[in-house]
Amino acid sequence: MSLVVVGSVAYDGVETPHGRVERMLGGAATYIALAASYFTQVRVVAVVGDDFAQADTDLLASRGIDLEGLERVHGKTFFWSGKYSDDMNDRVTLATELNVFANFQPKLPESYRNARYLLLVNIQPSLQRNVREQMKHVRLAGGDTMNFWISDFREELLETIKRWDFLLINDHEARMLSRETNLRKAAAKILDMGPHTLVIKRGEFGAILFRRDSYFIVPGYLLENVFDPTGAGDCFAGGFIGYLAEHGFSLEGDHVSRGMLSRAVIYGSVMGSFCCERFGVERFRTLTREEIDARFEEFRKFTSF
Amino acid sequence: MSLVVVGSVAYDGVETPHGRVERMLGGAATYIALAASYFTQVRVVAVVGDDFAQADTDLLASRGIDLEGLERVHGKTFFWSGKYSDDMNDRVTLATELNVFANFQPKLPESYRNARYLLLVNIQPSLQRNVREQMKHVRLAGGDTMNFWISDFREELLETIKRWDFLLINDHEARMLSRETNLRKAAAKILDMGPHTLVIKRGEFGAILFRRDSYFIVPGYLLENVFDPTGAGDCFAGGFIGYLAEHGFSLEGDHVSRGMLSRAVIYGSVMGSFCCERFGVERFRTLTREEIDARFEEFRKFTSF
Repeated sequence: MSLVVVGSVAYDGVETPHGRVERMLGGAATYIALAASYFTQVRVVAVVGDDFAQADTDLLASRGIDLEGLERVHGKTFFWSGKYSDDMNDRVTLATELNVFANFQPKLPESYRNARYLLLVNIQPSLQRNVREQMKHVRLAGGDTMNFWISDFREELLETIKRWDFLLINDHEARMLSRETNLRKAAAKILDMGPHTLVIKRGEFGAILFRRDSYFIVPGYLLENVFDPTGAGDCFAGGFIGYLAEHGFSLEGDHVSRGMLSRAVIYGSVMGSFCCERFGVERFRTLTREEIDARFEEFRKFTSF
Repeated sequence: MSLVVVGSVAYDGVETPHGRVERMLGGAATYIALAASYFTQVRVVAVVGDDFAQADTDLLASRGIDLEGLERVHGKTFFWSGKYSDDMNDRVTLATELNVFANFQPKLPESYRNARYLLLVNIQPSLQRNVREQMKHVRLAGGDTMNFWISDFREELLETIKRWDFLLINDHEARMLSRETNLRKAAAKILDMGPHTLVIKRGEFGAILFRRDSYFIVPGYLLENVFDPTGAGDCFAGGFIGYLAEHGFSLEGDHVSRGMLSRAVIYGSVMGSFCCERFGVERFRTLTREEIDARFEEFRKFTSF
């Protein structure tokens, strides 16, 4: 069943210990759409400028991604650049040029409105809420956010996530949002804010899925070479929601859905791990569903006892 | 089958955000012996001063721990004190008074020499080697070390671990020892140094067991309250080797041993998690094997998919 992804399509400049790329396709919605496209039909809502290259449109289209909601306006595409530390666990932002993204007002094409799955990527909470309200037939809606919205737009954010089924954030954001240091206590508080499912991403250490009555933890995949971690968290989100959309996840039949959510977390981890193997979105030019399923089985092998 | 543990028995002063204890029973060998005592007969080789309290001897004895190798000499017992950061991921050492431990020369009682399992805790590598050579019938021998021995006694340490079956270290130590940042590459290098099994402890993020042809990862247990992390890594070691000794682990029959090693890592994690629930060794005054086995099953529940 189809998935609508609302967020940024951008150009990135990235430097890691393995090299440097001045300008390449990036943006959270791009990574999510590419990752999710291995599982389900993806429809993107984003904005780009008139510098957006045909080759980049072609890459997205080659994965069957619906670009009717990819608005083109006069100006330059959102540009971000950053540099990673030697162990790649930290990065500094060198440039953030919002350009056409500064005035992004998500517009849902008519054909998107009946989609059953919705992922609202890190944008202003009121915009996220507005899109959620336009999607009347959604079975599962959620998204992520970031420290800026948590600290400076707290009330607006709380109002927004009230109507979300799931929230995907990292451990630092979970602590900020809940005002609790301990992750179990933080999760319990966040589940009281609305979402029935919380996924806390922990970078190289994996992820935790929390529900009211249970939790599931997956360790991170041990890559032998991490070339570029940019987009890994977004690919996690794409694999997670993509798998749920592929299998028609629904809250009815909760005994079934629990296992499905755990497997979705594994597929998220699998997609995040592939993302790091090349710069930017490069890995998605050759990645196959067979490789994805093989790595899923690898997770089973190194976590079973 | 019985396990010989060689290392420090000490007094600790600890401050965490949950409180402060001026002086309590501690030391790596103490934590390891207590944790392992739930699985197998433990025999301790250590040294204490004449200030070592009868109540502390009694606690160890109450867990059936053989104290024939606990040497008492004139002087004061090793004392360490430290203070943890707010999130308890860092600590500063406030005092290290080696006292009688400064001249520790492990003496193996005759009755210990035929033990099949041996754990050599962080002491000078040449002392570790000396003990290893005295134990002729050992089925599984290994231990841990620390940054100081890795940097300043490297050759001596390499000579020592050549004859070890397993090495238990944390991720930082693994990177120092191997001179590799990436953990998979680090592990491959360390397995070339002698041990057939490497366990890398990652604190709250769990542990990884590496062998030449496979690896196994367990995430950390999510405690709702961490009172005092002191000794958690040692309790991990005690649970790990204790479980292997209980089940008579042997390298012969490798298909059997792989699953056993994974379960040993889980029992190690279980023991480390209980350790943090109270100050010092307090948790071991009430902990039962039933609680341990129940938490083992909890690990299965939150990691299976």
